[in-house]
Amino acid sequence: MSRFSEPQDERFRALNTSLGFDQRLWPYDIAQSRAHARMLAARGIISEGDRDELLAGLDAVWAELEGGSFPFAPDDEDIHMAVERRLTEIAGPVGGKLHTARSRNDQVATDVALYTRAWAEVHVATISELCATLIAVAERHQGDALPGYTHLQRAQPVYLAHHLLAYVWMLLRDRERFRFVIGQTAALPLGAGALAGTNFDTDRRMVAEELGFSGVAPNSIDAVSNRDFVLDYLSAAATCATHLSRLGAEIVLWSSQEFGFMTLSDAWSSGSSIMPQKKNPDAGELLRAKAPRVVGHLAALHGVMHALPLTYNKDLQEDKEHLFDATDTLEACLWAAKGMIETATFHPERMAEAAADDLIAATDIADLLVRRGVPFRECHGIVAGLVRTAVESGRGLGDLSDDELHAASPHLDGEVRDVLAQRSWLESKVSEGGTASARVAEQLASARELL
Amino acid sequence: MSRFSEPQDERFRALNTSLGFDQRLWPYDIAQSRAHARMLAARGIISEGDRDELLAGLDAVWAELEGGSFPFAPDDEDIHMAVERRLTEIAGPVGGKLHTARSRNDQVATDVALYTRAWAEVHVATISELCATLIAVAERHQGDALPGYTHLQRAQPVYLAHHLLAYVWMLLRDRERFRFVIGQTAALPLGAGALAGTNFDTDRRMVAEELGFSGVAPNSIDAVSNRDFVLDYLSAAATCATHLSRLGAEIVLWSSQEFGFMTLSDAWSSGSSIMPQKKNPDAGELLRAKAPRVVGHLAALHGVMHALPLTYNKDLQEDKEHLFDATDTLEACLWAAKGMIETATFHPERMAEAAADDLIAATDIADLLVRRGVPFRECHGIVAGLVRTAVESGRGLGDLSDDELHAASPHLDGEVRDVLAQRSWLESKVSEGGTASARVAEQLASARELL
Amino acid sequence: MSRFSEPQDERFRALNTSLGFDQRLWPYDIAQSRAHARMLAARGIISEGDRDELLAGLDAVWAELEGGSFPFAPDDEDIHMAVERRLTEIAGPVGGKLHTARSRNDQVATDVALYTRAWAEVHVATISELCATLIAVAERHQGDALPGYTHLQRAQPVYLAHHLLAYVWMLLRDRERFRFVIGQTAALPLGAGALAGTNFDTDRRMVAEELGFSGVAPNSIDAVSNRDFVLDYLSAAATCATHLSRLGAEIVLWSSQEFGFMTLSDAWSSGSSIMPQKKNPDAGELLRAKAPRVVGHLAALHGVMHALPLTYNKDLQEDKEHLFDATDTLEACLWAAKGMIETATFHPERMAEAAADDLIAATDIADLLVRRGVPFRECHGIVAGLVRTAVESGRGLGDLSDDELHAASPHLDGEVRDVLAQRSWLESKVSEGGTASARVAEQLASARELL
Amino acid sequence: MSRFSEPQDERFRALNTSLGFDQRLWPYDIAQSRAHARMLAARGIISEGDRDELLAGLDAVWAELEGGSFPFAPDDEDIHMAVERRLTEIAGPVGGKLHTARSRNDQVATDVALYTRAWAEVHVATISELCATLIAVAERHQGDALPGYTHLQRAQPVYLAHHLLAYVWMLLRDRERFRFVIGQTAALPLGAGALAGTNFDTDRRMVAEELGFSGVAPNSIDAVSNRDFVLDYLSAAATCATHLSRLGAEIVLWSSQEFGFMTLSDAWSSGSSIMPQKKNPDAGELLRAKAPRVVGHLAALHGVMHALPLTYNKDLQEDKEHLFDATDTLEACLWAAKGMIETATFHPERMAEAAADDLIAATDIADLLVRRGVPFRECHGIVAGLVRTAVESGRGLGDLSDDELHAASPHLDGEVRDVLAQRSWLESKVSEGGTASARVAEQLASARELL
Repeated sequence: MSRFSEPQDERFRALNTSLGFDQRLWPYDIAQSRAHARMLAARGIISEGDRDELLAGLDAVWAELEGGSFPFAPDDEDIHMAVERRLTEIAGPVGGKLHTARSRNDQVATDVALYTRAWAEVHVATISELCATLIAVAERHQGDALPGYTHLQRAQPVYLAHHLLAYVWMLLRDRERFRFVIGQTAALPLGAGALAGTNFDTDRRMVAEELGFSGVAPNSIDAVSNRDFVLDYLSAAATCATHLSRLGAEIVLWSSQEFGFMTLSDAWSSGSSIMPQKKNPDAGELLRAKAPRVVGHLAALHGVMHALPLTYNKDLQEDKEHLFDATDTLEACLWAAKGMIETATFHPERMAEAAADDLIAATDIADLLVRRGVPFRECHGIVAGLVRTAVESGRGLGDLSDDELHAASPHLDGEVRDVLAQRSWLESKVSEGGTASARVAEQLASARELL
Repeated sequence: MSRFSEPQDERFRALNTSLGFDQRLWPYDIAQSRAHARMLAARGIISEGDRDELLAGLDAVWAELEGGSFPFAPDDEDIHMAVERRLTEIAGPVGGKLHTARSRNDQVATDVALYTRAWAEVHVATISELCATLIAVAERHQGDALPGYTHLQRAQPVYLAHHLLAYVWMLLRDRERFRFVIGQTAALPLGAGALAGTNFDTDRRMVAEELGFSGVAPNSIDAVSNRDFVLDYLSAAATCATHLSRLGAEIVLWSSQEFGFMTLSDAWSSGSSIMPQKKNPDAGELLRAKAPRVVGHLAALHGVMHALPLTYNKDLQEDKEHLFDATDTLEACLWAAKGMIETATFHPERMAEAAADDLIAATDIADLLVRRGVPFRECHGIVAGLVRTAVESGRGLGDLSDDELHAASPHLDGEVRDVLAQRSWLESKVSEGGTASARVAEQLASARELL
Repeated sequence: MSRFSEPQDERFRALNTSLGFDQRLWPYDIAQSRAHARMLAARGIISEGDRDELLAGLDAVWAELEGGSFPFAPDDEDIHMAVERRLTEIAGPVGGKLHTARSRNDQVATDVALYTRAWAEVHVATISELCATLIAVAERHQGDALPGYTHLQRAQPVYLAHHLLAYVWMLLRDRERFRFVIGQTAALPLGAGALAGTNFDTDRRMVAEELGFSGVAPNSIDAVSNRDFVLDYLSAAATCATHLSRLGAEIVLWSSQEFGFMTLSDAWSSGSSIMPQKKNPDAGELLRAKAPRVVGHLAALHGVMHALPLTYNKDLQEDKEHLFDATDTLEACLWAAKGMIETATFHPERMAEAAADDLIAATDIADLLVRRGVPFRECHGIVAGLVRTAVESGRGLGDLSDDELHAASPHLDGEVRDVLAQRSWLESKVSEGGTASARVAEQLASARELL
Repeated sequence: MSRFSEPQDERFRALNTSLGFDQRLWPYDIAQSRAHARMLAARGIISEGDRDELLAGLDAVWAELEGGSFPFAPDDEDIHMAVERRLTEIAGPVGGKLHTARSRNDQVATDVALYTRAWAEVHVATISELCATLIAVAERHQGDALPGYTHLQRAQPVYLAHHLLAYVWMLLRDRERFRFVIGQTAALPLGAGALAGTNFDTDRRMVAEELGFSGVAPNSIDAVSNRDFVLDYLSAAATCATHLSRLGAEIVLWSSQEFGFMTLSDAWSSGSSIMPQKKNPDAGELLRAKAPRVVGHLAALHGVMHALPLTYNKDLQEDKEHLFDATDTLEACLWAAKGMIETATFHPERMAEAAADDLIAATDIADLLVRRGVPFRECHGIVAGLVRTAVESGRGLGDLSDDELHAASPHLDGEVRDVLAQRSWLESKVSEGGTASARVAEQLASARELL
């Protein structure tokens, strides 16, 4: 018997039900129910016999869900009610005892925490795999130079290994973020009841231990109102997706005819419906395009939580679709990045050609002057003048005569041309973290160690 | 001499300059320049005499900036160039040596990291103060009940202390987030040069130590491209501001005539330009309204970073205004929350009256049935029927006769009325983290310990 | 034969395919193909016989899709390819002629424009229905007063009709926005080809007319790159959803025991899994919670378009899921608003009681003084003093004695108590658009006319 | 005298005051006060003498604000109170009469509507100027071909004029959006009072006419709660900024050494603090980076409005900073786009070289086959095979022998090489809106007409 005398409007039911999306929580929901039933029995709140019937019933429900034979009913409002309804059909009235000392409010928070933790762990592993791929490719290209760009203008040459390792460090920070997320899911909500705690002296720590939580949420109101861990997850995912969007943008750029630094494998390329010659870097573009989607989910959940009075409100149901789409999107993007990078072909000769433009060595000439005692700011002016002379006459810096050099500064002479020997531009970047080979080798070693 | 033959367009200069906002970075900029000068001398890149002149000059610049007498020039593009220009005016040509082995790209990343860390530390302290205030007020209201709401419907009574502590736990998580941010600013960018490292074998760890970084950014490309720590900051700030928006929303609600649970002090209230009787909770409303602003900054910076090719791009200049406004906004909101809470008057009698509605104890009657062996789901139906009977006849649950109770279930009798004695509703929530006095006392103790 | 020698990676295919979501475009896709086939024949690009075979084949495909018997194939990348593949299976090689003078780039833009226009038209109709409901309910409550709130403090009383009409005006602006959206979908993209136009002198205006476009996109590059109309749609939807979130918030507030202004019907309420007495305004909460979701879609699509070089890029595929979810969400919210409002019960006596607080008339006393020649700002101060006297002594303004009134200002006397007769507070708001009955009647008339 | 017995806390005052940003509203505030005073006198609510004193006082205040000599006081909470305070200092107690029949709630809504309309009108004009520039540059490059790209892969050649005109059409839609915004500011809020209308029978239409509104807001509650026009503005600005970010991205791309399609003027370029050779497209990057900022403002204001109960709430104060920054940002970006485009040098020879890659003509060969009766889908496969043969043997399509062509399809012969004569690729795109010269000339004419 319900306190209501009228059935729900069909449109309301359609808006209100969450079964369409929350059914993917079922493994977490059943895991929590098993732990809950065991605890209820351990505390004497239900009998051991009841517990065993519940566990057997839950096993049967699990099997149906896993096997795809679970009979969803039109009235199932969400996965929690569906599981309990089915359990009661299978196990009989004892099924109605499972919800003792539990509310959907703490139940759903627990499921979502378990889901969030599980996916954060998956991402940690996938990120590590992607890093391993980047490192492996970097190792193959330790000696291949390409221009480093600032403002998308050629600035100073770097080794491809150095450039690829930049992504490894970004991703390792992403891994730290997901580990932080895992830490933020460590307090078990279950046991908070609807909002105030329960009328039974439950053993929340027993449940926590079984489900892999390291402690229990200390305040029942906060426990049912809190979705911080989803925000933390979405924030980590948004930053990681943004990193991948930068990688995707560079893949698109480098695959263009103008750059020509890389060719994606056929396995990671698309054709055109109309232009037979096209080979398109669709996966790179999608890496680029998916970041705003994840950022949108983050902003939306912040919006949902905005100005929401305590404790549980239906608004919190909006956490799930944002979370679920983000987990799937990010995981697919991480694999796409890995797939593209490990099967792509880089073109060292095209990169080397682009890196050979000797204007790129202007800083090195300035630094030569520094070593000869000229204040850097003054050197910068002298070399800017040389650049202007060279550009205006259509020459490179190496084409300037000794007279022209000397006229620019008495401190300049033919040694400039030694500086302009390309390899030295790269190998002179000896500061820690720089692109000189020895420094890159250090990086490779420490990145490998962190994996 | 510049490589350019034409001056910049005035409109371009106006768009391009960042001095209007980045001048607040000056203390960090000078601190880094001092450390950089000391390191250059320690490595023999400049002489000790040069170093001393640079340090003396930087002291003079600091004094001018601190005293408000620093003469900004129309050509100063940003704070970095302004400081160096002024340093050279004061110290002479040696000023031009300061930029040796440094680029604006690593310089600005370092300033921003220092700023971010400093403000994260400020927030950690302010959050602790706000928590202390909440705990102190909670202690004064350990025995005062009010309704706990779900869906803004009265659900189960809780102690005000319990409710206020929910915010403490949110804020303590915010504190963890800012500590994570601090950790993410721990790798010194300086020494990365423009993007590839520098031509000098600098001692980045010496600089790091002086400036309070625990290590150095391992990859020069990543060092100048990375703004993850600003994203981390904005994410922490957005979640914290969202928490405060919930507090603000509740302050507004509780200050309404309808709720009447609290009255803000005059010191934290506003009047109306037209309605003389009004006392408005403007600060509560602003807590509510500022969260989307901070969330907007976070989304905007994600947008700036989206699809940005490596390494430094001018787009990164857009990090600062978002960051600066967020720090100021959040800090002001934290203090406003503290100010309102510590000076507000709560009205225990109004809260108690609202909490006395005996429908609120329906779950407790259900749990009484559970103890008598009825499966919870069945109990829920029995009590829903009682509620319907009571509501339809305009009575409370306590007004139902023994016959009515017995008719609903043979397991029900007059003990129902004992359950309905208010205090028991609260004290029966004995599960860990529940609202029973002993549990709230545990919470207060552990929250106090965490501060 | 493809230009590729290697099959696509399974993970790439999963990321790249859009069939999962774009299949709902099928009615628009087939409509456009019919128009395209007719035009190709009219221009002599295909024969009339070919056209008839194509049209017959498209009819067959339509029937399969409508009936749910369409055989999707694992290789179908999107709905466009699926339809063409099936058409060719049914009609034979002539199916391959349909894509003459067309590219997926202009094809998909056309489908999306048709979809957007169709849903904007649906919303225009639903908004009108919701307005009609609000007006009908307003008419029933023309004489029922409740407090108007500023800062959620009781400010001045208004008629419920006046309050509900505020939402009508918001919604009528939303209707204007969707009409603007319809206008922005009026330029046919089809005929732009991949990006540069086609090699056939097609008749784009013939296609436009058949499909209900009022003109053709004037630039082929813009035609395939443009998703402005989706942004326009999402912007209109976001603002409309935000309006509904305000209505939802008020429904939640008014349904609380503290306000008690309204009771939702059982048909639009939910119960609790644990608290048998609860009747929750879930639909109101969902109205509130869905707005950030739609805003998130808008922000995400802006993000996708951000910095995207011309012309078509795969990133544009990300338009669809944002759009589709927004259309469904908004339409469901509009119906929910209508359903709740038309079945809710308002409680005029509770509202009247709240509106009877005589502090609410302070402005009216001030205006009495204005009429007696005192400058408004001075009146404001005088009445603020009266309020303070009343509040501090726990009385209403009407309880102040003639002496107290006179002491506050020689211009005050017993007429104050006439002003405090409630009805006059409402009926004195005679300015155009004010809450006086005659003004509300004017509004009702003009709102009804606009529908 | 205030109803408050305690002064405001300093931190509250700092949070609450809006004078720091709303002072730029002063011209609108005084304009509205002039109109309001005239109306009050016309209706006999104040005397003509009072009106004249008020107008004279407002003139004096205007002069002080315009001249920069206005004495702001520490207690001025916002520009409205500052103006009224100063007016009263200058004109005496009559200044206190100005606020008769007005509240800050309708006053501020009116100022913001005036501000929004004024800036929307400014943008309409600036957009027109930018379009004129784009058209002028397009006219100079009617005969210069470059590759059109899809997926950043060379797809089909287009004329530069055609490409630049794509931006013109985007911007003309932006102009329509701003015109819609202007329409949305057309209903005067003033006269709504605090929320319920006023106690005086004012003449709102007289005020509307003086201030350039075409009508009055029909509902006083809506009038003070409504910020739709700011949302409309921010939405239009966000889309326009997003268009400009696409232009900025292409400027950055085309300025790279790899593309080399354009060189920005020195007047719109920056140098580097460390690399003397650099010429950076900072303004292009900022166009790119500013779009997320404007989008962030839009999302933030949606967030502020989210779930806000009627009527006026302090939260609405958050409209202004988002609006103000957006107006300044967008206007600066429009001028930057104009400045860069009109002073840049395009390099037709580099573009032509890139457009000469004959793979780009694959579609045209397919269409040749179509004309010979082969279904398009089949042609696509045949030509894909030719592309594969050419690419694998390092040749262009034009290098394939008659035998190779014939082997691929009996319908292919030497005419393929005619098709591959570059000019024909462009001139064959004859469909309306295509890149053929005649079609571009049509576009130029109609775009010029729309300006």
